[in-house]
This record gives sequence, structure tokens and C-alpha cells, in this order.
Amino acid sequence: MNLFRHITLDREAEEMLHAGLPPEVQLIAANGADPEERQFERFSECEIAFGNIPASWLSRSAALRWLQLESVGFEAYNGALAEFGRRGVLTNLHGFFGQPVAESALAGIMALKRGIDRLTLLKERQEWEGSTLRPQLGLLQGAKTLIAGGGNIGHSIRKLLSGFDAEILIYDRHPERGDLSTTDAFDGELPSADVVIACLPENEASKHFFNERRFALMPPSALFVNVGRGGVVDEPALIKRLKEGQIAGAVLDVSCTEPLPHGHELWNCPNTVITQHTGGGSKGEQTGKVAVFLDNLSRYIAGQPLKRIVTAG
Amino acid sequence: MNLFRHITLDREAEEMLHAGLPPEVQLIAANGADPEERQFERFSECEIAFGNIPASWLSRSAALRWLQLESVGFEAYNGALAEFGRRGVLTNLHGFFGQPVAESALAGIMALKRGIDRLTLLKERQEWEGSTLRPQLGLLQGAKTLIAGGGNIGHSIRKLLSGFDAEILIYDRHPERGDLSTTDAFDGELPSADVVIACLPENEASKHFFNERRFALMPPSALFVNVGRGGVVDEPALIKRLKEGQIAGAVLDVSCTEPLPHGHELWNCPNTVITQHTGGGSKGEQTGKVAVFLDNLSRYIAGQPLKRIVTAG
Repeated sequence: MNLFRHITLDREAEEMLHAGLPPEVQLIAANGADPEERQFERFSECEIAFGNIPASWLSRSAALRWLQLESVGFEAYNGALAEFGRRGVLTNLHGFFGQPVAESALAGIMALKRGIDRLTLLKERQEWEGSTLRPQLGLLQGAKTLIAGGGNIGHSIRKLLSGFDAEILIYDRHPERGDLSTTDAFDGELPSADVVIACLPENEASKHFFNERRFALMPPSALFVNVGRGGVVDEPALIKRLKEGQIAGAVLDVSCTEPLPHGHELWNCPNTVITQHTGGGSKGEQTGKVAVFLDNLSRYIAGQPLKRIVTAG
Repeated sequence: MNLFRHITLDREAEEMLHAGLPPEVQLIAANGADPEERQFERFSECEIAFGNIPASWLSRSAALRWLQLESVGFEAYNGALAEFGRRGVLTNLHGFFGQPVAESALAGIMALKRGIDRLTLLKERQEWEGSTLRPQLGLLQGAKTLIAGGGNIGHSIRKLLSGFDAEILIYDRHPERGDLSTTDAFDGELPSADVVIACLPENEASKHFFNERRFALMPPSALFVNVGRGGVVDEPALIKRLKEGQIAGAVLDVSCTEPLPHGHELWNCPNTVITQHTGGGSKGEQTGKVAVFLDNLSRYIAGQPLKRIVTAG
């Protein structure tokens, strides 16, 4: 059977993929230099694909039986998913990025609390400010932390905070995934929050969930974190509050425009850590993706159910 | 009874001190504008002192019965302590800085693991590097963490790491304070360490504890953290290893020279977070110190044993 590879891998991950393929699987690699139609021809002969193919290919893929994405998000494929679901299966990387994203969120929060961003700039200028900085620092211990989104990332953050004596409340509209299941309950906690973390998926209900009204409910001492999707935040409202000091700071792994262009207002927001959508990254990211794929491949060949199947919402 | 105040307080802490003094206590404040001998005259009439007075005063303080330091360290007073101990008592802030210092240590470690230092500089330049940074990031999850020093800071760090599935080993020569009580046992763990944290007190045994030999035992992937005392590190040896990439990075709250002068080699070390002895700082630091003092003051007046008494080693 033919496998179409549409993912860029470093050498270690590449070797791992080659070494892990059983003899009956023929690897057909995407060649970035080819025009898309030439690539599509190669893809259209494949039963399996690994990587985020152009979304338009999914409905035109008569031979395809399984597509393993290299992301959690699969919004781009929603249009063709119901139809594709009759002949094949789509799997994603659900849960794969929970730990690295949670660590980036906490790294950003702690940087703002303990002044690591300011100290980094002082180091560049070789300037010692020590004692003037001390009274400006905060502690995360005991922080009331609201997490919007009870998925893997939200629960990973809760786990990382185990040793901080923090009061943690997770909001998710599915009651079994969190502590608060209504927006009213969530809004009621915002005025006493120390840290508010967005890790909502992008959908109709979450679009601009963090709007001017909700930001206004947070105290000026609160930190806001977005490690979910750019679209869940009304970005101009956030920028205004940061620039006017009505919120203490922000950690943003995602934004509405990525990459952020030079001159974008977010670059100039004070007390803001911009992690440039690196939250899911780590040294082991690519080999980890290959491991997920190879595990599913052995299931596919054995006729067992695949892991991390996603279906049309 | 007279109380000599030798500590700089912000307005909130100042008001808290005034409001908390019982009527029988007369506050005599140090006046920084006065020459030291004039100040000493005022001090010499006092039964109680709050703050780190010049060390030479301790042996000349016939009236003094209790000195509350505003630090954990009391090395400067060691010379006069045995003699003073016959007529008075010295208390310090043991444990007071454990949580903030532990949070700064973790903030620095996570910054290096998740690239917050590099992302901060990119934000200054409004440059997006996102995907090229991802494979350079590390995770703290599961990190083997060696902590040298089983005092309050070391145990606070262990607690903060509760949610990281980390293997944590504390070295302390007093077996009841840690997991490893011999330097041989400690050295044996260094080659497999991911993070090595120094929070040793300064004494004969700890001077240059982290020397060239011990740094050479650490793998090049290890991070080194010093939140104890500058003197426990052979600084030129550390600088050499950082510059040559034989160690992955460092978080330094303390150094042999403070403030670090412009041009000092540490400023130029790569992958190094210099927290400028701010580790103990926080918004509530000064009111917290006053709270410790007032608590001890009420014990002193009631003739009860004081908290955090230190004695000559």
C-alpha cells in the first residue's frame, strides 16, 4: 500500500519513519519543488497520508482511506469530512501538545511574575537594577487561576500547578470536563482571578469569547494567557487594556495574524510575552509525531481501530 | 523600651509597623543622613533593633537584647555572636524567602527550557522566528533535578515541581534534610542530571562546591542554577563552560560580585538568565518582614521564646 508523506521531518525523525515502515508500505514523499497538481497526482494513488495535505485534496482523494494529521486542529478539513468519513478515517494529534503548551504557558506566567522578561533586556544592556525590581515582582503561589477549556492543555496546566497551592477552576461547556459549565459561572469568577488562561478550541461559541466585557470583569492585577486559538480573543480589546494598564500582562502563544508582521501593535504591548506559536514545540516533537503515526500504522495494518479519530462536528 | 529601626520600608510597611507597635515601645529611626557614629549613639540606647545594623555595632551594644535581621544570612555577625549571645538574642528571616526564591529559580529554568529569553529579545526587534525555535525548546517534565542544600529554598523548589513528574534528589550533609548526605553520592548523580540547583549556605564546606570537577561531571544538556550564595560557585569555571557550550545554560540569582559591573563576563554568557539577586523579592516583601518582626515583638514583650533564633556556629 502507498503512503503519501506531507510533513517536513528532521533527519532523526526521517530515519525513524523509514526504519518503522513495514515492507508492504511504499513511501511516496511530497516534493515541495513540484507544482501542487503534480503532487496531487502522486497523492491520489495513496491509501494513507501523513501530514496536513491541502484541504481541497480531501474530497478529491478516491484512494485515500486514512489521513494522519500533524496537528490537533482539523478545522480546515471540516467541509469535506462528512463525505470523506464514508470511505476513510481522519486522525489528529489530540493530546500531543498538552505538556509543551502547558509548560510554555507556565513559563510565560512565571516570567511576568518574576521579571524574567525585564531581566533579559537588562542583561542585553548589562544594567543592574536588582533592588528597584524586587517590589515589582509577584508570586504565583496561591493564585486563583481560571482556565477556559477543559481539554488536554487545560488539564496539563492544572497538573503543573499542583505545587503552587493555587485555586484552579476549569470552565468547559461539557460539565464532565471542568468545574464550571456555564458562562455565567465563569464570568462570576473573573473579578477575583489572578490568572486567566484561554485554551478553548475555535468554534462558533468560542469566537471572541474574550471580548471587552470579559476583560473588563478581570481585575487590573490579572494576567491573561492565550494558548488556544487567536480567534477566541477580541485582539483590539486586549491590546487596549494592555496599553492602558487595565490588565497586568499577557502571555500569547497565538494571535489573529501569524506570523505577526513588523509594526503590529502586539509587539509594543507592555508586560506581554509573545511565544510565537512555539508552545507545542520541543526537541522531541518530530520523532514524537512519527511515533504516533507508526503506532496508528501498525493498528491500521492489523485492522484495529485507530487512535485519535476525529469526526465531522 | 527603645526600638532602633535600621531597615528601609515603603509607606505601606512603615504604616504597618507604626500601627503595630505597642505603646511601651519607642521607635528610634536610623537617619541615613547622619554620620555612622551619631547613628550608633542613638542605637546604643536601644534594647531592640530591627534591620541589618553595621556588624561592628553588635559587640559594642551594651543595651541591646534582641536584634531582628531582615535577611536569612547572618555571616557578618558571626564574630560577635558568641559574646552577644550571653546577653541577647539574634533572629533572622529563616524561611521567609523560600517561596519567592524557588519561584524565581523555576521561572528561570522554564524560561531557558521554553525560550522565553530568546522570545523576549525577538519581541524587542519585532522579529518572528516561531518554527525555527520550536525544535530548540525543551521540556521540564520528567527532568532529573539535583538540589544541593536541604533548607527552605530547596524544599520549596521540590514542592513547586510536584506536578512535573520530575525525579528530585536533595543533597544535604545533614541526612534528615535530604536524600543524599555524602558528596560521593551527590557526584554520582551529576552525570545523569537534567537540572542542578545550588541553594547551599556559605561556609567552609560549601566554598567553590561547584568547581571545575563537578561542572565536568554534568552532561552538556544540563542547566545549572544558583540561588544560594555566589561563593559556592567557582565562577570562572562556570563562565568557561557556558561560553564553550559544555553546559546548556544557567540561572544565576547570585554572583561573586554584586552588582555585576558593566563589562563583566557573566553578562555575555549565552543561555544565562541573571536575576540580579531579586529572587527574594515580591510586592509583599516589606510588609512581610514587618509582620515577622511584630510577631516576634509580641513574643518578646510577653517573655515568650522568639522565632527564628540563630546561634554562633
